[in-house]
Amino acid sequence: MSEKAPWLTFRPELKVLDCTIRDGGLMNNSRFSDEEVRAVYRACLEAGIDYMEIGYLNSTKVYPPTEYGPWRHCREEDMRRVVGEHKSSETGLRLCAMADAGGKSDWQKYSLRREESVLDAIRVACYARQISEAAEMISHFHSLGYETWLNVMAISTVKEDEMDQVLEIAAQTPVDVVVVVDSYGALYREQIDHIVKKYLNVMREVGKEVGIHAHNNLQLAFANSIEAIILGCNRIDATFLGLGRGAGNCPMEILLSFLRNPKFKLRPVLEVIRDTIQPMRKRFHWGPSVPYVLTGALNLHPRDAMEFCEKDPFGDIVGFYDELVEED
Amino acid sequence: MSEKAPWLTFRPELKVLDCTIRDGGLMNNSRFSDEEVRAVYRACLEAGIDYMEIGYLNSTKVYPPTEYGPWRHCREEDMRRVVGEHKSSETGLRLCAMADAGGKSDWQKYSLRREESVLDAIRVACYARQISEAAEMISHFHSLGYETWLNVMAISTVKEDEMDQVLEIAAQTPVDVVVVVDSYGALYREQIDHIVKKYLNVMREVGKEVGIHAHNNLQLAFANSIEAIILGCNRIDATFLGLGRGAGNCPMEILLSFLRNPKFKLRPVLEVIRDTIQPMRKRFHWGPSVPYVLTGALNLHPRDAMEFCEKDPFGDIVGFYDELVEED
Repeated sequence: MSEKAPWLTFRPELKVLDCTIRDGGLMNNSRFSDEEVRAVYRACLEAGIDYMEIGYLNSTKVYPPTEYGPWRHCREEDMRRVVGEHKSSETGLRLCAMADAGGKSDWQKYSLRREESVLDAIRVACYARQISEAAEMISHFHSLGYETWLNVMAISTVKEDEMDQVLEIAAQTPVDVVVVVDSYGALYREQIDHIVKKYLNVMREVGKEVGIHAHNNLQLAFANSIEAIILGCNRIDATFLGLGRGAGNCPMEILLSFLRNPKFKLRPVLEVIRDTIQPMRKRFHWGPSVPYVLTGALNLHPRDAMEFCEKDPFGDIVGFYDELVEED
Repeated sequence: MSEKAPWLTFRPELKVLDCTIRDGGLMNNSRFSDEEVRAVYRACLEAGIDYMEIGYLNSTKVYPPTEYGPWRHCREEDMRRVVGEHKSSETGLRLCAMADAGGKSDWQKYSLRREESVLDAIRVACYARQISEAAEMISHFHSLGYETWLNVMAISTVKEDEMDQVLEIAAQTPVDVVVVVDSYGALYREQIDHIVKKYLNVMREVGKEVGIHAHNNLQLAFANSIEAIILGCNRIDATFLGLGRGAGNCPMEILLSFLRNPKFKLRPVLEVIRDTIQPMRKRFHWGPSVPYVLTGALNLHPRDAMEFCEKDPFGDIVGFYDELVEED
C-alpha cells in the first residue's frame, strides 16, 4: 500500500459497529419504539454496517420493565418482533447486545445458544475492578457459541499497572475483541496512542482484535476513532447523529464519510437520521455542549453534566463550573 | 521536558488568538453590537488570551455599511468606542484585524501607523492565487509598523507545487506568522501533519511562526488544532463556543481546558459564552451539523451548507446529499 495518501485506501478487515440503540438507551431508559429500532436496523443493513448492538442484555430486577424499555433486556421475542428471522449469514449484519458486569445482568441464567438467537455476539462491559467477573461472563457466552467482546469502561481512570493486569486476564479468555472505551470522553490523541498501542501489543499476540469506543465530550470522538484506525484498530463503534450518553459517541455519518470501503453507504444513514434520530431531539438532549467539555477535561463521569443538561443545556455553565472546581 | 505525559506541560511561546468577532461576522454580516464586542474583549483580557481579532479591515464599497456592521471595516473610532485607549503593552492583549486580498480591502489607502492605532497586528487573508497581492499587502502593513500574519485560505484545495510556491513567496516577505487555514474543515489528521510540517520546515528557517485555523465541519477543529500544537505550531486560532462560519471554529472553551499554561483562565470564557455568545443563537445558526459534514467530506466550500442551514438546519439532509453527489 502506498504511504502517500493512506486516507484514500481502506482495510477490508475494518468493521463498524452501530451502538445507537444501546448507548442511546442511556438517555431514555432504552424506551425506543419498535419502529425506531427497526429503522436503525434497516439503516445498518442498507449502509453495509457490520454489527448492530440492539440493546442491553441486563436484568429486569435491576432495570424493571415499568421504568425501562425492552431494549434494556433484549428478550428474544422483543428482538424478533423487530428483526424477524434475522440471520447474519444472509444479511451480512451481526446483531449483538451488551451485558454489564457488577450484578446488572443475569448472565448466569442466560442459556440460549447462538443458533437459537438472533444475536451473534455478546459484548461484556465492566470496570477494571470487575475484570474477574467479566472473564467468567466471556467464558459463559463463548460456551454458548457467541462471538464475545470485552468493553473495559472508563479507561481514562485506570492506572497503568491495572491496565496491564486487565489485558493479561483478557488475553487468557476466549474473547474475540477487546475495546478501548473512553466513557468520560477525556482522552487526548497522545493518550489514545499510548492506550491503543498497549492493547494492540497484547491482543495481536493472541489473535484478538482491538476496538475503539469514543465519547464526544471534548469533540474528539471522531478524531480519536480515526487515530485508533490509523494505529490498527479494526473494530469501530459509532452511532447515528452521535446519539449516546451525554455528549454522545463518534457520529456514524462522519465515520462513514471518512471510510473508503465502497461497501459502506452514507445515504441510508442520512435517511435514518432525518426520519428517526433527529426527531428524538424533541424527547431528550444529547451531543457536545459546554458542561460535557468541563467533565471531560476534568476526567469525570458525565453524570453531573447530564443532570445539568436535562434541566437546561444552555443554563448557568459558570455556576456549574464553580461547583465542579470546588469539589475538585 | 519529559516525554512521559507531554499534555501536562506547556510551551510559553504558544499564543492563542480569539477570532470570534471576525470569523463570526461571516454569519451576521459583522453586525455585532458594541456591548457584544466589548464583552468578547473583556473576556479575552481576563482569560489571558494573547490576540483578539476584532473584525475585518475591509472596503466600505464592497461591504456597504448599510448592509454590514462596523466590524467589517474596523474604523479606528469604532474600535476605540469599545476598547478605549487600549494598549497591548499595558494589557498583554494584542488587537488585530483581517484584511482580505482580491480587491476586498482598501489596503493601499490605509495609512494609520501602529502607534496611532489600537491595532497591533494585521492579518492578510488570501487564496493561493492571490499570494502576490498578499505579499504587497504584508509589506505595506509591515512598513506601517504592524506585526503581520498571512492566512492562506482553503488550503485543502491547494496542490503541492502551488503550496511550495506560496510558502517560498511568504518566506521572502517580512510576515511574522503564516497560518495553516482549513477553511472547508476538510482535512484529516494525516493531512494536517503533512501540511503543518511543510509550513514549519520553511518558516522555521526564516524565523517565522506557524499558526493553525481550523473549521469544525468534520468535528475535527479542536483535534487538528491539538495536532498542530504537538507538531510545533505556536499560534492557535479559536472562538468562543466555536462561533464562526458554518460549522464554526475550534472552540476556545475546549482549547483552554487543554492548554496547561496557568495564565489561561477558563471561567471568563464560560461567562462570555453564557451571557453574550449563547444568546446569539436566537439570531443565527452555527456549529457542527450534518450538511457541513457533507461539504467537509467532499472538500467543498461550505456556502451550500450555510444556505441549507439558514433555512432549516434540521431540514431534508438526504435531498441535500443527493444534490451534492449529483453535482460532484
